[in-house]
Amino acid sequence: MRAVIFDLDGTLVDTVYGHVLAWHKVLEEGGFEVEGWKVHRLIGMSGGLLTKAAAHEIGRELSEGEAERLQKRHGEVYKELMPRRRALPGAIELLRHLHDTRVKFGIATSGRRQDAKPSLDVLQLPAGAVIVDRNDVERAKPEPDLFLAVQEQLKVRPEECYVVGDAVWDLLAARRAAMLGIGLLSGGYGHEELDRAGAYRVYSNPAELLSSIYQLGLRSA
Amino acid sequence: MRAVIFDLDGTLVDTVYGHVLAWHKVLEEGGFEVEGWKVHRLIGMSGGLLTKAAAHEIGRELSEGEAERLQKRHGEVYKELMPRRRALPGAIELLRHLHDTRVKFGIATSGRRQDAKPSLDVLQLPAGAVIVDRNDVERAKPEPDLFLAVQEQLKVRPEECYVVGDAVWDLLAARRAAMLGIGLLSGGYGHEELDRAGAYRVYSNPAELLSSIYQLGLRSA
Repeated sequence: MRAVIFDLDGTLVDTVYGHVLAWHKVLEEGGFEVEGWKVHRLIGMSGGLLTKAAAHEIGRELSEGEAERLQKRHGEVYKELMPRRRALPGAIELLRHLHDTRVKFGIATSGRRQDAKPSLDVLQLPAGAVIVDRNDVERAKPEPDLFLAVQEQLKVRPEECYVVGDAVWDLLAARRAAMLGIGLLSGGYGHEELDRAGAYRVYSNPAELLSSIYQLGLRSA
Repeated sequence: MRAVIFDLDGTLVDTVYGHVLAWHKVLEEGGFEVEGWKVHRLIGMSGGLLTKAAAHEIGRELSEGEAERLQKRHGEVYKELMPRRRALPGAIELLRHLHDTRVKFGIATSGRRQDAKPSLDVLQLPAGAVIVDRNDVERAKPEPDLFLAVQEQLKVRPEECYVVGDAVWDLLAARRAAMLGIGLLSGGYGHEELDRAGAYRVYSNPAELLSSIYQLGLRSA
């Protein structure tokens, strides 16, 4: 295996619960009363799909304009709720380890550039790190486009890539990209939920992944 | 089976994600940087145990005074984050159905009275409903005291009681009380996590429990 592609929110940065509550509140404002645990299971999809899924959940139609407004509002409410972002334990060290041992890696997020930037800022990424966000592709997760875009930039084959993510959407997109998924519990899904979505391995957080890195058979570039 | 004892937050009222974020922020303020998903798995314990667990998580000691201050602060932050509480789908209807069919029920919450009241207020409870909170017992969940206090007031035997809860702490306390646990996914745990903690049945939310109520073999008083 020659490369590791990371999801961002919930995988490297501890932001999932802020996103859940922000969406919960924004959907409620918009008249979409979706239960918290169902909102949680939608996090990690593109914002457009998430709003459609929420509307479907309560049996309502959603216009493109309404979906766009909800996404914008989510960005604002998230910032109010969680002004500070924290890297997950081991995240900075894991990326540094891959960099130092010359294992290729990149980051692929369903978030838009302006929303992803504050999360990327806490990771102390090396110059030139490969990052692909919502603005770079036509369709976000669970479509495989984000992961395939990173893989192309890393100049490796899909089957040489691991995808590390906290949501079933990462694992679904990984399978569609012919990559091997690794689940992290740090997004709040249960172990079994990630197993069933096809995770090859499940670790608690980036720190546990780093301490188990030799289980992954990674090769330097 | 002659009685149903309900947990409150996450089981009848959609408050878990607000509690997670409130604790996340309050613990961070206090210098306890605990990951969101780990905070989530502590919800439903008494506030005292939760603060101790959080301190243990990052290898720190916690004084009684500090624990008390964190709990008070949590109540304040929660109210700021989620000023409005929502009953979970089917919660009001389920309690009404039990009342109308004369099946005994009660509510047992690890929350303190002043924190539980706004959640109870949205449930449209019949007059005289049995409610036991943190202030009524010496030790909250995962100790069985709360459930045993409800059972005594309902004048049934423990083995005639179901406990309905969303957290593994409810299921652990139920087993210790010799009652049968029923898990709800509405607190955000995975199905398997509730199964493994000993749930006899798992439903999505109160609405699904109500639509499946004849699976439970309940008897009128």
